[in-house]
Amino acid sequence: MSKVSDLAAKLRGLQIDKMVENDFFLTWDKTDDELAAVFAVADALRDLRERNISVRIFDSGLGISNFRDNSTRTRFSFASACNLLGLQVQDLDEGKSQIAHGETVRETANMISFMADVVGIRDDMYIGKGHTYQQEVAQALREGYADGVLEQKPTLVNLQCDIDHPTQTLADLNHVIHQFGGVENLRGKKVAMTWAYSPSYGKPLSVPQGVIGLFTRFGMDVVLAHPEGYDVMPEVEAVAKANAAQSGGSFTKTDDMKEAFRNADIVYPKSWASFAAMEQRTDLYAKGDFDGIGKLEQALLAENALHKDWTCSEEMMSLTKDSRALYLHCLPADITGVSCREGEVAASVFDRYRVPLYRQASFKPYIIAAMIFLAKVKDPAGALEALEQRGVERHTVF
Amino acid sequence: MSKVSDLAAKLRGLQIDKMVENDFFLTWDKTDDELAAVFAVADALRDLRERNISVRIFDSGLGISNFRDNSTRTRFSFASACNLLGLQVQDLDEGKSQIAHGETVRETANMISFMADVVGIRDDMYIGKGHTYQQEVAQALREGYADGVLEQKPTLVNLQCDIDHPTQTLADLNHVIHQFGGVENLRGKKVAMTWAYSPSYGKPLSVPQGVIGLFTRFGMDVVLAHPEGYDVMPEVEAVAKANAAQSGGSFTKTDDMKEAFRNADIVYPKSWASFAAMEQRTDLYAKGDFDGIGKLEQALLAENALHKDWTCSEEMMSLTKDSRALYLHCLPADITGVSCREGEVAASVFDRYRVPLYRQASFKPYIIAAMIFLAKVKDPAGALEALEQRGVERHTVF
Amino acid sequence: MSKVSDLAAKLRGLQIDKMVENDFFLTWDKTDDELAAVFAVADALRDLRERNISVRIFDSGLGISNFRDNSTRTRFSFASACNLLGLQVQDLDEGKSQIAHGETVRETANMISFMADVVGIRDDMYIGKGHTYQQEVAQALREGYADGVLEQKPTLVNLQCDIDHPTQTLADLNHVIHQFGGVENLRGKKVAMTWAYSPSYGKPLSVPQGVIGLFTRFGMDVVLAHPEGYDVMPEVEAVAKANAAQSGGSFTKTDDMKEAFRNADIVYPKSWASFAAMEQRTDLYAKGDFDGIGKLEQALLAENALHKDWTCSEEMMSLTKDSRALYLHCLPADITGVSCREGEVAASVFDRYRVPLYRQASFKPYIIAAMIFLAKVKDPAGALEALEQRGVERHTVF
Repeated sequence: MSKVSDLAAKLRGLQIDKMVENDFFLTWDKTDDELAAVFAVADALRDLRERNISVRIFDSGLGISNFRDNSTRTRFSFASACNLLGLQVQDLDEGKSQIAHGETVRETANMISFMADVVGIRDDMYIGKGHTYQQEVAQALREGYADGVLEQKPTLVNLQCDIDHPTQTLADLNHVIHQFGGVENLRGKKVAMTWAYSPSYGKPLSVPQGVIGLFTRFGMDVVLAHPEGYDVMPEVEAVAKANAAQSGGSFTKTDDMKEAFRNADIVYPKSWASFAAMEQRTDLYAKGDFDGIGKLEQALLAENALHKDWTCSEEMMSLTKDSRALYLHCLPADITGVSCREGEVAASVFDRYRVPLYRQASFKPYIIAAMIFLAKVKDPAGALEALEQRGVERHTVF
Repeated sequence: MSKVSDLAAKLRGLQIDKMVENDFFLTWDKTDDELAAVFAVADALRDLRERNISVRIFDSGLGISNFRDNSTRTRFSFASACNLLGLQVQDLDEGKSQIAHGETVRETANMISFMADVVGIRDDMYIGKGHTYQQEVAQALREGYADGVLEQKPTLVNLQCDIDHPTQTLADLNHVIHQFGGVENLRGKKVAMTWAYSPSYGKPLSVPQGVIGLFTRFGMDVVLAHPEGYDVMPEVEAVAKANAAQSGGSFTKTDDMKEAFRNADIVYPKSWASFAAMEQRTDLYAKGDFDGIGKLEQALLAENALHKDWTCSEEMMSLTKDSRALYLHCLPADITGVSCREGEVAASVFDRYRVPLYRQASFKPYIIAAMIFLAKVKDPAGALEALEQRGVERHTVF
Repeated sequence: MSKVSDLAAKLRGLQIDKMVENDFFLTWDKTDDELAAVFAVADALRDLRERNISVRIFDSGLGISNFRDNSTRTRFSFASACNLLGLQVQDLDEGKSQIAHGETVRETANMISFMADVVGIRDDMYIGKGHTYQQEVAQALREGYADGVLEQKPTLVNLQCDIDHPTQTLADLNHVIHQFGGVENLRGKKVAMTWAYSPSYGKPLSVPQGVIGLFTRFGMDVVLAHPEGYDVMPEVEAVAKANAAQSGGSFTKTDDMKEAFRNADIVYPKSWASFAAMEQRTDLYAKGDFDGIGKLEQALLAENALHKDWTCSEEMMSLTKDSRALYLHCLPADITGVSCREGEVAASVFDRYRVPLYRQASFKPYIIAAMIFLAKVKDPAGALEALEQRGVERHTVF
């Protein structure tokens, strides 16, 4: 029996009928079965591609991307996922569009989607904005479809918002599952999601929030560590607590990086701006005070600099389980002596984990493809088996 | 008998052999049969796609776009049309190219077209420039093909020039035909193409010009209304007059918006800059006087502001046939209280017509696809039937 | 027997097994057989496309482009080649990415390549940088593949570096071969690769270097002519000398344009910056001295202006073999009285050779496609025959 058959059998045991024609905003919108389906489909698509079997399910169609913040990894992952399934990416560059005229979100959403099967959005810079914007777009698309304006309902994929970064954290978790030999082995593992010093700009909260909102669902002991003042959104902490209670794991907080690292199986040290600072930035943005944003950015960097000891050094790593916790990062990391003088991680640590880190990133295209696949295919188990059976070569072998 | 068979039968009755390997500049370059063919093919392609039947006629090939002015709707419509037929869009971003070196139009046209099946151009900012540029490109492509430089003759599609905006106005008209239940029901209908106040920049003339140059061909009574000084190009007015005489309709002008709206079946209130102002801008551009252009833009806005009463209010709408004329707009509209303080249309009017307006826009990808299809396929009727017969799924159903 | 069969037979006689899964940096990295294979595959792909036979060998996959300098011809050639073979182009715009954060070349290379079959790079502005960068990327991709991060090894294609411009010079040479009726007719022909005056910026050295490094391999008498101080890289001159010795041709230098043109069969007059100036620019760049670069650019133009007599005038052309040497240029040329007051070539000369020049450029998409094909297909001869046999229409004929 092939790996695909195994995964198809697994899919058949899951309650996932609500995923069809649906969107993907936050991992905690989804049931455990739905997340299990994403992993199963991602693994099956990867297996098929590795065996040179095409998984194209579209003969034509567009995947629209809208990046309101810079992106390399997610941009190329989205492009890869769309291409893998047969969709052509068309980027909405708001600078080259007529959107500045003041048109409504509802209108733009419809105008770009006449032949769109997917719309992927990154909007992570301002608290209270990104997720709201994505929901507005998705609502507009549902209405456009219901009204007969659109011939198909494009699926919205959150490519990072102010709250969550699900394509990242599901890729992270899929990596962890593979590293630990199965999701059943995660129970009781200790995860340290910790703040780390970086000399660069105030980074979004979506990764730490996404990690505590997701990893707590698998019976793990998740510790969130940061210096005072670097809190994440309280709503997401509440999600993490509820998840832990439900899954039989735990969610705790500390302001001591060492405590978090001690005996950890997995560490995810990463810089972010504090929630309070993010809110200030959002207010300044609302007022159009870009000077103020510049000054705030300076103040944030100065504040960061008080915590240079929050770094993933060899000494820190030696505190972890058998001194060799799995080190995670969403990349790019600020590496001490490589990309900056002092940063999130020591060069020797990063180097030791480089290949696993790149593997971690390599799951993202498949996670995105799985999200699309599950929204577009009524019988994903049957579809995967049919694709395997069809056996069209991705790359013709001569 | 399927809808596609009906449309194919209709196509067989039309004289359209000159469309093959031809370009699309202005609607008044085309015969009535040729326009009827565009509508028939657009409807057939839409019917096939709605039934999940692929209409790909290219296994590979490029669709080149060159937007010399901002665009969202037309950009995505062009991308959708190319993708639907199997072409990959490649955008010519003149800023990233070597064109600034001063190379000739003829050379650039050839250099980007070695594997291009379509070239779509928007160039609408300067009177006397856009159409001329498009003709230069098309001439270069014809020569390149004749000289054996190009292996295929790319079709030029006008995505808006200084004179006409055929992909827009044909989408508009196709929408009208569907709303009125057939082209035969247009005779005698009153159309008000009117200027409307907008606080934004001096907008191109191509829409009002395109509308009076097209709608007058169908026996309708077309009224062009604008405040004194907002004339359109006299050549296009002459086209409209000749069309009306030919079709048994009428073309009249007024400087009274109410007169235009009174008893109208269709209203198209929209802002534009005056022809005289556009000519001034073109002169300033030729001199490289960008300060002058900025001042002119200010003067135009001040002049606009004298005519804030030219707005599509509920009161205006109440003058129309049964108070419910079909409201058209090429979008985005300047909506009073939504995208600006005072604009082209009242929010309540716009809201009531929002869904039809989005439907109107949804015809554009199919109009563009039809233009390409008719230039690339010798027997369009047979091709549509063959595509229906072939029955390849656009989106594989599992 | 078809042309494709002929070319396949030719391919079967060549030692080219090292091309599979390999990269393309410099023509002098490649054996004579390998270059012959590029020409044979390029001609076969062109023949098939001209006969409307699809040569798609990918059902999905990405072709990544990274242009660190402006490009039109090469950009569209790369897009055409990728599309022809079934790959979708995804451009890495370093401005829109997170690369500014300081991540390593190794990391970026992997992050963009999870589903990339080809990576094409232009990096030609700084001596000692471009080729090195391309090698770094290729090395990272090899490691990524070896480490299991990448599921396929993307092929690196040099789209112009500081040393060579192989897609250009192989297109140039393929044009020459076709003009002279076969590679066997090149022996003994005189080629004048000469500097020419241009009022524009300091142009890269890669074309003259690439030409002397390639054309000397075919038994031709290659003369490099330039005013004093406009030397090219000594390493490349050494390559040219060795090539000439090997092939039975010659490589000589002169500072007299007329001497170079006298009795030449082929002339390639083109502007470039001197190697010394390029090195200075690289030093200034390393120091971040952009003012210095601006001043250097001015000094270079002033120096250029001392050599306005280095121009491909009718008088110069009259010195060549029968007054009608084949005139080559990589385009765009600086044409006297057209794109500048005084430039590289007289308008009348350029006009007479316009069609052949455009033909010359038209080989580039096929050269790039051939490079990719030979890296991706183990049995190129069999593959070409199979594609001909398969007979899928590129553009469905109805």
